[in-house]
Amino acid sequence: MRPLEIEFLRRPLAYDGTQIGPLWAYREFGRQGDSLIAFVGRCAIPAKHMIDQEDVRRGARIASPKMLHFIAEHFDTPPDLEKAVLRQRVFSTLVHEELRARGAEGIRREGDDLYTPREEKLSISVATATPVSTKFHFGINVIRARGVGVKTAGLRDLGIDPAPFAEALLEAYRREMEGVLDARTRARGAL
Amino acid sequence: MRPLEIEFLRRPLAYDGTQIGPLWAYREFGRQGDSLIAFVGRCAIPAKHMIDQEDVRRGARIASPKMLHFIAEHFDTPPDLEKAVLRQRVFSTLVHEELRARGAEGIRREGDDLYTPREEKLSISVATATPVSTKFHFGINVIRARGVGVKTAGLRDLGIDPAPFAEALLEAYRREMEGVLDARTRARGAL
Amino acid sequence: MRPLEIEFLRRPLAYDGTQIGPLWAYREFGRQGDSLIAFVGRCAIPAKHMIDQEDVRRGARIASPKMLHFIAEHFDTPPDLEKAVLRQRVFSTLVHEELRARGAEGIRREGDDLYTPREEKLSISVATATPVSTKFHFGINVIRARGVGVKTAGLRDLGIDPAPFAEALLEAYRREMEGVLDARTRARGAL
Amino acid sequence: MRPLEIEFLRRPLAYDGTQIGPLWAYREFGRQGDSLIAFVGRCAIPAKHMIDQEDVRRGARIASPKMLHFIAEHFDTPPDLEKAVLRQRVFSTLVHEELRARGAEGIRREGDDLYTPREEKLSISVATATPVSTKFHFGINVIRARGVGVKTAGLRDLGIDPAPFAEALLEAYRREMEGVLDARTRARGAL
Amino acid sequence: MRPLEIEFLRRPLAYDGTQIGPLWAYREFGRQGDSLIAFVGRCAIPAKHMIDQEDVRRGARIASPKMLHFIAEHFDTPPDLEKAVLRQRVFSTLVHEELRARGAEGIRREGDDLYTPREEKLSISVATATPVSTKFHFGINVIRARGVGVKTAGLRDLGIDPAPFAEALLEAYRREMEGVLDARTRARGAL
Amino acid sequence: MRPLEIEFLRRPLAYDGTQIGPLWAYREFGRQGDSLIAFVGRCAIPAKHMIDQEDVRRGARIASPKMLHFIAEHFDTPPDLEKAVLRQRVFSTLVHEELRARGAEGIRREGDDLYTPREEKLSISVATATPVSTKFHFGINVIRARGVGVKTAGLRDLGIDPAPFAEALLEAYRREMEGVLDARTRARGAL
Repeated sequence: MRPLEIEFLRRPLAYDGTQIGPLWAYREFGRQGDSLIAFVGRCAIPAKHMIDQEDVRRGARIASPKMLHFIAEHFDTPPDLEKAVLRQRVFSTLVHEELRARGAEGIRREGDDLYTPREEKLSISVATATPVSTKFHFGINVIRARGVGVKTAGLRDLGIDPAPFAEALLEAYRREMEGVLDARTRARGAL
Repeated sequence: MRPLEIEFLRRPLAYDGTQIGPLWAYREFGRQGDSLIAFVGRCAIPAKHMIDQEDVRRGARIASPKMLHFIAEHFDTPPDLEKAVLRQRVFSTLVHEELRARGAEGIRREGDDLYTPREEKLSISVATATPVSTKFHFGINVIRARGVGVKTAGLRDLGIDPAPFAEALLEAYRREMEGVLDARTRARGAL
Repeated sequence: MRPLEIEFLRRPLAYDGTQIGPLWAYREFGRQGDSLIAFVGRCAIPAKHMIDQEDVRRGARIASPKMLHFIAEHFDTPPDLEKAVLRQRVFSTLVHEELRARGAEGIRREGDDLYTPREEKLSISVATATPVSTKFHFGINVIRARGVGVKTAGLRDLGIDPAPFAEALLEAYRREMEGVLDARTRARGAL
Repeated sequence: MRPLEIEFLRRPLAYDGTQIGPLWAYREFGRQGDSLIAFVGRCAIPAKHMIDQEDVRRGARIASPKMLHFIAEHFDTPPDLEKAVLRQRVFSTLVHEELRARGAEGIRREGDDLYTPREEKLSISVATATPVSTKFHFGINVIRARGVGVKTAGLRDLGIDPAPFAEALLEAYRREMEGVLDARTRARGAL
Repeated sequence: MRPLEIEFLRRPLAYDGTQIGPLWAYREFGRQGDSLIAFVGRCAIPAKHMIDQEDVRRGARIASPKMLHFIAEHFDTPPDLEKAVLRQRVFSTLVHEELRARGAEGIRREGDDLYTPREEKLSISVATATPVSTKFHFGINVIRARGVGVKTAGLRDLGIDPAPFAEALLEAYRREMEGVLDARTRARGAL
Repeated sequence: MRPLEIEFLRRPLAYDGTQIGPLWAYREFGRQGDSLIAFVGRCAIPAKHMIDQEDVRRGARIASPKMLHFIAEHFDTPPDLEKAVLRQRVFSTLVHEELRARGAEGIRREGDDLYTPREEKLSISVATATPVSTKFHFGINVIRARGVGVKTAGLRDLGIDPAPFAEALLEAYRREMEGVLDARTRARGAL
């Protein structure tokens, strides 16, 4: 079973919020079906593409000079936002674990957010539903962002190279989703 | 918002597989709605109550002299086994994290299983669906089990006291589920 | 368990059909999660914001000089229009009951519409689904509307003060939804 | 559109809890598809057929010498207990309304329960899900029950003849479900 | 039970991709609920109305001078794209069968596509989900299309008159959907 | 993408209705995930294992001395009987097509039933839902059955060898399900 297409895009790509739309991985890269795509690039999300309405409410500026981005899409039938959020949580724990494996000590995870021991925010994330799929975006700073209202840090501050880090996470998430598929095809129901 | 009832049962209780049935927490303890209940007790699951059909296939013996058990129930509408498995995965990462926070180094998680650095199995877990809810059981040895076909270890080997460990996990899972609820009530869809 | 945020907005607010969009209560008032919000204001829905395609088909004019509005949102996973309509029906019966409790005799309910004994239409209502939630709008005239193609009446004609009437309905719907949650977390399945 | 088969069984039938099982109306009477069947008969539900686990918990005795019973089944895809409860609530309000229309003053509805002004319980009800459908049972005493732990009253005390009362409710529920179907096939989504 | 409204529109109508939108049959023709509508007309779908992202990716030109079109809508709750695709497949086999019944030998079906023995493409089709329903479009050339990148053929080449062919398919699909409804209201679950 | 495990069991196996239960293919043959398994053997289904309640109602005898059986299981989340029936219909058309390809002329399909030109019944079929999956059974006589209340025929009468026929159908269904998966991961929604 191969539940997930994965790819680390070698060329830089700016994240502007349109990549959270349905079928982006297929339209842009021919990656069809459930997928997790990673790439490095600037982040700047105009208000009209913001998914999290808390960001909209408080007039947040979501931006970073250089981020490692992950875009996941799952073709749930029917699409169900709760599954997207649960998968986003699972992915967040994988990022947490992978940071630790590469020597970043004392990182704290709170929901889908990661913080350094100095309470610098490392990441942003959002999950959403489309009429045909569910998706999440997870971005982790490579270079720290300024002027976004909170202290931030990036992979560079942690001495972590984005490319192998991304590759490891793509593999880890694929393995995890294979495990989920395995578990849900081995269990009988209870009455 | 309080999405989850939690309770650590002070008196010991043997896990025999019937607790995975729907509405157990309500019927036995009056804990109504989504819940996570923890208790300490023997584990012995007869084949007819085994949920995981891989265990049934290989004639597994699932037993432990003393385990810390967690039983979660979520009243999904409609019930969806994939959500149960995703929540089980999230819970497994919380257990992993909590072991680390209490000084257990080098624990490895693989899906819903936890292993010591010496490849001793610490835990068992299964997720299932009922017509009215989804559930998971997660058990972690307090005392190591023998005669179950694999090397095992327990919390005692790790120097961890089950009660405060359980209390911390109940709180952590409640916080996590609150976070999931928060995330899925803040996001607009993508089109 | 607290399944529903409720609020009666003290300042007037015109209903123009945009309030049926997802996350309105959160974006505008910080009311997160399932909610029922009431307010008093003019009603004028341009065709492009009409949800009911029968209104669109017959070129209906949906307008009222002063209405008491209710906007409900439920974060069903997955969203399901049938649930929205069923909840809308339940709410309609609560309005019917509350009118009677305040002395309005002989009101007739037909689906989600309420009529006086003289066949004057008191209310409008529609239910819809968004990618992340289900919603309904229920509006009851405070002052009768003219030029909308049917005879109408309003709370003023019935001698009913909108504010306490709204407060009573907010509480009644919250209690009802608590009851629904209670019922669906007490029942085992049947096979 | 005819969303619902209805029938009032002319011969008496005892309710013992097995009628809540899936496809009862089809198996017993050839009524296929969504249906509401009414009949008059004794009520005695042994513990093993009780659906409501609160009844099981408190060792309730659910019995009545003569009740008017209604059994609804809806072939939801997928089955969803919340819909069953919402429909049960709608049906309860129809019973409430029909009692009033036949001269029973001051009846109080609380969730799916109906009480006389003297706080005598008139009815019992439960909703459940099966792997292929959702169902509810609603029973209203014809003759008051004794020895069930609460004061009760029945249709006879209210001077109401069960047969025409049942026929009116079957029609009212069918009309209501037609209205629900009508509403959910006229509304566009909101984005 | 009457699960499906059917109609063959006597006047020609061009298909431009907007007919795949929700509630088209109701808004345009008052056909409410599940429906299958057939009509004959030109086909030209601008890129912005293309549903199939493979067509968008490869810059396909989807056009035909004269096609027999079918538009199906089903009010699934919740909407589920997989059901739409499964129904589209069933419809494709009915078209295949009806071509054969009218003397067209050696037609090959591959998924939702039909080819003549000379590998000329006869048809186009797509399925999609809306927030309130699922839909599919199936178009079969009456006159062969040119300049669309593949060899094509049409009903005229096969000597088949579109009108009775359409009428037969409308009836066949209605019968098929009645059969599906029948089958899903006769089966008990398995545990 | 490989959505389906397929296998033709070389040794005979009697079908007694227990094979329609969840996870049979995994438990018995280690075939995990969505699957279609074929085998040849006697058919005799005791009443307590009958899924179709019409068979139960009319006291049907479901039996055949030698049948070619197919058991499909799909791990839908959530399980939805309508999908099972739609897949069963698609499979029936594949069987129909494959009979024709092997020279059986004039076979008639009606829903999930196949008849020879002499109105002899060739097949039986049923679809069902479990708490964790949906399933269907399709059996086609190899040797004609007697004493089952209808005239029957079998593959032997048609001069068709069961083994290659089964292999062709396993491949055809796998290809079809791949096509469904392909179609539902290429389409955007419509609004």
